[in-house]
Amino acid sequence: MNIQAPKNAPLTVTTGALPASTKIFTTPVGFDDVKVPFREIALHESAKEPPVRVYDTSGPYTDPTVTIDLEAGLPRTREAWIIARGDTEEYVGRDVRPEDNGNVSDAKLARAFPIVNNPRKGKPGRPVTQYEYAKAGIITAEMAYIAERENIGRKAALDNAAHKLAEGESFGANVPDFITPEFVRNEVALGRAIIPANINHPELEPMIIGRNFLVKINANIGNSAVSSSVAEEVDKMVWAIRWGADNVMDLSTGRNIHNTREWIVRNSPVPIGTVPIYQALEKVDGIAENLTWEVYRDTLIEQAEQGVDYFTIHAGVRLAYVPMTAKRVTGIVSRGGSIMAKWCLSHHKESFLYTHFEDICDIMRQYDVSFSLGDGLRPGSIADANDEAQFAELETLGELTKIAWAKGVQVMIEGPGHVPMHKIKVNMDKQLKHCGGAPFYTLGPLTTDIAPGYDHITSGIGAAMIGWFGCAMLCYVTPKEHLGLPDRADVKEGVITYKIAAHAADLAKGHPAAQLRDDALSRARFEFRWEDQFNLSLDPERAKSFHDQTLPKDAHKVAHFCSMCGPKFCSMKITQDVRDYAESGMAQMSDKFRNSGAELYMEEGIDAAKAANSALGAKRENPIP
Amino acid sequence: MNIQAPKNAPLTVTTGALPASTKIFTTPVGFDDVKVPFREIALHESAKEPPVRVYDTSGPYTDPTVTIDLEAGLPRTREAWIIARGDTEEYVGRDVRPEDNGNVSDAKLARAFPIVNNPRKGKPGRPVTQYEYAKAGIITAEMAYIAERENIGRKAALDNAAHKLAEGESFGANVPDFITPEFVRNEVALGRAIIPANINHPELEPMIIGRNFLVKINANIGNSAVSSSVAEEVDKMVWAIRWGADNVMDLSTGRNIHNTREWIVRNSPVPIGTVPIYQALEKVDGIAENLTWEVYRDTLIEQAEQGVDYFTIHAGVRLAYVPMTAKRVTGIVSRGGSIMAKWCLSHHKESFLYTHFEDICDIMRQYDVSFSLGDGLRPGSIADANDEAQFAELETLGELTKIAWAKGVQVMIEGPGHVPMHKIKVNMDKQLKHCGGAPFYTLGPLTTDIAPGYDHITSGIGAAMIGWFGCAMLCYVTPKEHLGLPDRADVKEGVITYKIAAHAADLAKGHPAAQLRDDALSRARFEFRWEDQFNLSLDPERAKSFHDQTLPKDAHKVAHFCSMCGPKFCSMKITQDVRDYAESGMAQMSDKFRNSGAELYMEEGIDAAKAANSALGAKRENPIP
Repeated sequence: MNIQAPKNAPLTVTTGALPASTKIFTTPVGFDDVKVPFREIALHESAKEPPVRVYDTSGPYTDPTVTIDLEAGLPRTREAWIIARGDTEEYVGRDVRPEDNGNVSDAKLARAFPIVNNPRKGKPGRPVTQYEYAKAGIITAEMAYIAERENIGRKAALDNAAHKLAEGESFGANVPDFITPEFVRNEVALGRAIIPANINHPELEPMIIGRNFLVKINANIGNSAVSSSVAEEVDKMVWAIRWGADNVMDLSTGRNIHNTREWIVRNSPVPIGTVPIYQALEKVDGIAENLTWEVYRDTLIEQAEQGVDYFTIHAGVRLAYVPMTAKRVTGIVSRGGSIMAKWCLSHHKESFLYTHFEDICDIMRQYDVSFSLGDGLRPGSIADANDEAQFAELETLGELTKIAWAKGVQVMIEGPGHVPMHKIKVNMDKQLKHCGGAPFYTLGPLTTDIAPGYDHITSGIGAAMIGWFGCAMLCYVTPKEHLGLPDRADVKEGVITYKIAAHAADLAKGHPAAQLRDDALSRARFEFRWEDQFNLSLDPERAKSFHDQTLPKDAHKVAHFCSMCGPKFCSMKITQDVRDYAESGMAQMSDKFRNSGAELYMEEGIDAAKAANSALGAKRENPIP
Repeated sequence: MNIQAPKNAPLTVTTGALPASTKIFTTPVGFDDVKVPFREIALHESAKEPPVRVYDTSGPYTDPTVTIDLEAGLPRTREAWIIARGDTEEYVGRDVRPEDNGNVSDAKLARAFPIVNNPRKGKPGRPVTQYEYAKAGIITAEMAYIAERENIGRKAALDNAAHKLAEGESFGANVPDFITPEFVRNEVALGRAIIPANINHPELEPMIIGRNFLVKINANIGNSAVSSSVAEEVDKMVWAIRWGADNVMDLSTGRNIHNTREWIVRNSPVPIGTVPIYQALEKVDGIAENLTWEVYRDTLIEQAEQGVDYFTIHAGVRLAYVPMTAKRVTGIVSRGGSIMAKWCLSHHKESFLYTHFEDICDIMRQYDVSFSLGDGLRPGSIADANDEAQFAELETLGELTKIAWAKGVQVMIEGPGHVPMHKIKVNMDKQLKHCGGAPFYTLGPLTTDIAPGYDHITSGIGAAMIGWFGCAMLCYVTPKEHLGLPDRADVKEGVITYKIAAHAADLAKGHPAAQLRDDALSRARFEFRWEDQFNLSLDPERAKSFHDQTLPKDAHKVAHFCSMCGPKFCSMKITQDVRDYAESGMAQMSDKFRNSGAELYMEEGIDAAKAANSALGAKRENPIP
């Protein structure tokens, strides 16, 4: 199948279950039409353990019972919930115009998604955002779905007295033992969590972003004027969620933006975010000064009708803050921030995003598009971290948060960037202070500038730390950061790195069930259940392939040794021997001690060694006398 | 050249300078025969900046003026310093015995290093360790060398008033603005730093490990019974130091251990560490119970005569602690720890490493081999972190530290392992408390168990954090950890990841010059000096190759844009425009304002836009009216 004729790039995505994995569904009490997906990883029978259930972002693509038809898009499951609420109405949407795709010639125009759905918007005066429902005390199907989804493992953890897991340091977060739909509602009502869920994205499997929930990750995709095709971007989206991306941002620039996005949204089970100023800029041919509120407003409506779930809006880049960046080592590195800075200076006017902020809220509320208030003045280098410009903007984002809430719109706040380790925590503290507890969503931060090619790692360090401190969603950085557009391999490397960071943060915060997977994997490791170790890992393919580079034979998958030490010299094997010995040998010695008093210490280790030989049942080349 | 006939693996190592780099030497005042190497990275002339000087671990291999002859080994520069001190004597060393190479058959015996040097040892009653010299108030050539080496960039930082760099959080470390030889001596005398420098390793370029110096990293190499050859291991050593490994541990097991090690030590400019119990175990055919003090003692002497700079010795695995591990998820995962645990239980005796600890000190002192007191009971999973067994052993390591100091031997302490983020700092705090300030040397720690294949990243997070908290050396973990033996690519990935962690720690601790390289790279990035950005990075090859995947042409190396945004839409380009404008345009507006009062605000942005057009000098498709 080919969705972009000019480049003839066939549209293929990766489908099928991960190794040893089954997609299962559960239904929350009282919401019979809600089916919440999980992945269950089966273990070898020798483990005598139930399957390990894990959070599943991959959507229907990993469900072998579903036939994927990218031309039709995913099932519009949420549509029934939305219609049933009776507070939205279908209407004939805005026509697609040539400038929406960058005035590309017919020959280069990517094929439009074949199905046109009329958009919906909120009826006048009726609540339509999850925030409004929450404030009104209404528990939506989305909230029930999320409670079920977030509870993964918690019951198992609570049932297992051996696990005293909630012993982390959460820096004041409120991570409960069990998540109820009411807890979800309350967190959303307080603005401490958002459910990015445009009513025009009914293909969505709802998820939540908030400090008191599992730490989430975002993967950026998108073509640019220089490189990449529609087909590649759809493939990257499906690939990113396969490995655990909770959200995907389409950061496309250049041509075919509208059509690319439509293919992505229609086939995405995760929230899609965008930066509308990118497309608006294309509509004025890349000349920042020519941007107008009217062009921007039109773009917001265009994207809201398509079903984009959150918009990054750099409304905190105020005219007065721009000169604060003049002495920076790396000035303004946010694309949106630099566009708006240029606009402000060119017109010597306050940003139209700031002056029209209430108008923006009114549009976004109608579709339940969430704000991701952009950090246009984030530091682009260690030297610029935590400076006056950055924190001035953060305070403004705090003001705007309150306006958005008053307008009924959900809000999260974007954060840096490049920050050395000792300056990370104050970012979280100030964000909590200024933004009233709205979720924080950071890009890394990168903890040093000196490793281009490895910025997934420089930033994974910062991401894990700020996730621990309370950041709700971590925007991934790929190895190509600063150097080029990520390809498929980079997307996977970025996603896995950020799953590590998010999970490390969940563990450190004391999430009551996070450690279950670590424990299951470590038991598998210790018991030489190699296949279980691979299957429980974040990347079973890589784990298996690395193992097989030195020990490729199937027999080695059950071998009680590995390539690091070889068969005779394996610490895990020795420890197992020691443990067996400690149980049998020590017990035997205790009996002996009872029977013969102090005699034991006269025979010293000889009996012990004999007991060891017996307990181990091992063939010995040089048995102990 | 072929040093292991049986496998016919040719011995080749990578030589030559890194891109744009020159090896330079400086001589500390008063030590005319001491030449300290650095690497200087030249920048493009448009930068108008001096070369950036960086710490250089790579030895003569990156010096194009040196002819590398692996059959001869590196120049024995330190020998003159050692002889001049007059407190050591040459003697005929221990004969190499068949068991030293695992009783391998002649056909499989790796060729011995062609040159035999007589070993040296301390004369009776004379000081010979750097610790003893330091206590006696003597500043050795090694100390002067290290002061020169550690001062890199500090003068430049001090001279540059714009840099207020020493603003980190060092958690009580004492990182001075400038390092004097006396400071080095004092830190060594206090036991807070070690200079691993066996008198039989005269090829060594001295370096220091201590909380008040640059954070160091160690790379593990070594063959096993299953895989790898001598040639591969020598190549890995040279490869590891090329990318920045400060130390290398040879963890070989299986056959040919003695001959492999000799090739490595004779060709290594960095300290080499080993775990002697591995070889001792081979000498008793892999049967832990058959280990004796005599076999172990013989192995210590064998390795000390070869020039091994530090020994990992698991003398803290006491009999009473072993049962504490029985309920662990992953028992004892340290190879040395599990061997000793098995020995203790088998004989129902206290560990001979513990009971003979003073004898061990007496041997190591004669050659100035440093202790790396092993953490044989380190946790092997998140579940086992910070448990009773781990901390009981740590307290014993503290006792042993004091004994070693009393015997005149240098000591560092090994640490975990697998530790979730919130449990890392207490490891550092307890180590400082129990071990009297002796340097800490940790393996990661890994902050989650669920990512085999990515354990360089799970552990890089923990390594950066514990480095910040005060850990002096970080033992790398490669992507193959838990799965297989690292190959060349894994060694590089591990080394670069740990250079990132160590550098991030130096930045966060407030090292006065660490940020110079970040700043130089960020300026290059901001000014589109692509080649400078590549050359300043930890891995110039990867940075360039990633960039070239999307923009391969040479012209793009000077392009004022990159593949992420394309030519018209680049935030860095826009910011530069904004900055130019802010200078010229704003100034022009100020003049105008002085001349015509409030008129400026009537014309709004029009003049500003005209000024922008003029200032930018850009060809515009759609000029502002």
